[in-house]
Amino acid sequence: MPKKSKKIKVSFQGEKGAFSEMAAIKFFGEKIETLPCESFYEVFESVKKEKSNFGIVPIENSLGGTIGENYDLLLKFNLKIYGEQILRIKLCLIGKKGTKIENLKKVYSHWQALSQCREFLQKLKVKAIPVYDTAGAVKILKRKTKKDSGAVASEWAGKIYGMEILKRGIETNKKNFTRFLVISKTERNFTKESKTSIVFGLKHLPGALYEALKPFAKRKINLTKIESRPIIGKPWEYHFYLDFIGNIKEEKIKKALEDLKKKTTFIKILGSYPIAKNGN
Amino acid sequence: MPKKSKKIKVSFQGEKGAFSEMAAIKFFGEKIETLPCESFYEVFESVKKEKSNFGIVPIENSLGGTIGENYDLLLKFNLKIYGEQILRIKLCLIGKKGTKIENLKKVYSHWQALSQCREFLQKLKVKAIPVYDTAGAVKILKRKTKKDSGAVASEWAGKIYGMEILKRGIETNKKNFTRFLVISKTERNFTKESKTSIVFGLKHLPGALYEALKPFAKRKINLTKIESRPIIGKPWEYHFYLDFIGNIKEEKIKKALEDLKKKTTFIKILGSYPIAKNGN
Repeated sequence: MPKKSKKIKVSFQGEKGAFSEMAAIKFFGEKIETLPCESFYEVFESVKKEKSNFGIVPIENSLGGTIGENYDLLLKFNLKIYGEQILRIKLCLIGKKGTKIENLKKVYSHWQALSQCREFLQKLKVKAIPVYDTAGAVKILKRKTKKDSGAVASEWAGKIYGMEILKRGIETNKKNFTRFLVISKTERNFTKESKTSIVFGLKHLPGALYEALKPFAKRKINLTKIESRPIIGKPWEYHFYLDFIGNIKEEKIKKALEDLKKKTTFIKILGSYPIAKNGN
Repeated sequence: MPKKSKKIKVSFQGEKGAFSEMAAIKFFGEKIETLPCESFYEVFESVKKEKSNFGIVPIENSLGGTIGENYDLLLKFNLKIYGEQILRIKLCLIGKKGTKIENLKKVYSHWQALSQCREFLQKLKVKAIPVYDTAGAVKILKRKTKKDSGAVASEWAGKIYGMEILKRGIETNKKNFTRFLVISKTERNFTKESKTSIVFGLKHLPGALYEALKPFAKRKINLTKIESRPIIGKPWEYHFYLDFIGNIKEEKIKKALEDLKKKTTFIKILGSYPIAKNGN
């Protein structure tokens, strides 16, 4: 991590109070400066142009799946994965101070957050209104004069905008985690309990993927995730994103990657970084 | 396909004019009845409860990646994949009749559509306002009285709501395709040029995925897509979704699946269906 004399600056996508900002604080601690960006692209760009020291982006949610755009940006930008952070997504019903749940008529949030607490909202018989962002929904709420509107967002977003938490943990499925990646211009120093992320291309031949996994199977390297992603500009051709246990500085991993290289059309190491524990 | 005496009814997610509705018409022809649903879940449910004959859902976009929720719904509901439809996503700038591009101040659309034509919108110097749906953005436009607002959506959505197409093909990357799956209660009859989709679970052991792909590699069965998806309720355990060329009624495929079964914790055949050509 950078020197402690200056505050670490971390870019994230969304409004202040977004889950990404929470993840940044969980990863680096409270004494950081956060830089809100409009898009994931801007997060990557701000790190590249050194407007910030790090960026943080969601890569995968245990309910929603992969955020494909960020995989593409990892490939496009020459940045490294510095670490990962897992955050449990706890959703709260938020209102202006003095709002009574029984008086609510409308509830704002990102469509995904609304769908994740559909059962709770159906019982309330409120109108669910999808907006672009959970923290943005709280911001909308703040501008309202009547006390008949609510928002679904993190407790953190409620606090930032001075709102009241009307109800905590309103999501149907509590096993709701998001994995975030911290990105940086510099490579992470070696740590023992590492995970490595790579991306590679294969010729579209029967058995190509099977052959590509052989160097890992042979060395008993544990794969933690695989994903084929369509190549932008070449519909229905795929890149493969692979996460596995180990560090590129270990001999076993170096050898596996050398073997793999012979079978791929290209390969890019996205980074080796410490394995995160499940967040809370 | 069902008898021609009665109109085929197809459920889709979104407002009338959504890309999913377009895909349904491309697949079945114009003489169908479409049933708008609020969520993907409702699309599956309406097919299960026979409120409609078929459902259609997006599964993958060449720029954005997989729509994970629909993979989970395929696993949850006991429905079959009946076919696939590929649609080229062409975005238009839409306004009320008589709107001049140079007078636009605000442009509404789904955030993904907005980001896909960011370059065009930046030149216009308009404010991009994210809303829940592309067709919904056109609906918002219709209610406006001033002619200073636009929407980004399909030409089809513009026509349905009686709006004017101000500019066609405003997306930065023209290689923008979405693959939709048609779902049904009944299995598709055998067709020669088929693709099959399956989902299976593996014990989390080194080499497990490599071993699972062996039955396909050995028989030179071409894989067209692989994806690991987190298991709901078990964070960071994965299901594998696999598409390959061939039909479950072919001997070679039957044998490969028998072999695979011995290596998996569970396996489910999602369907065999004709391979789609790239749409336009």
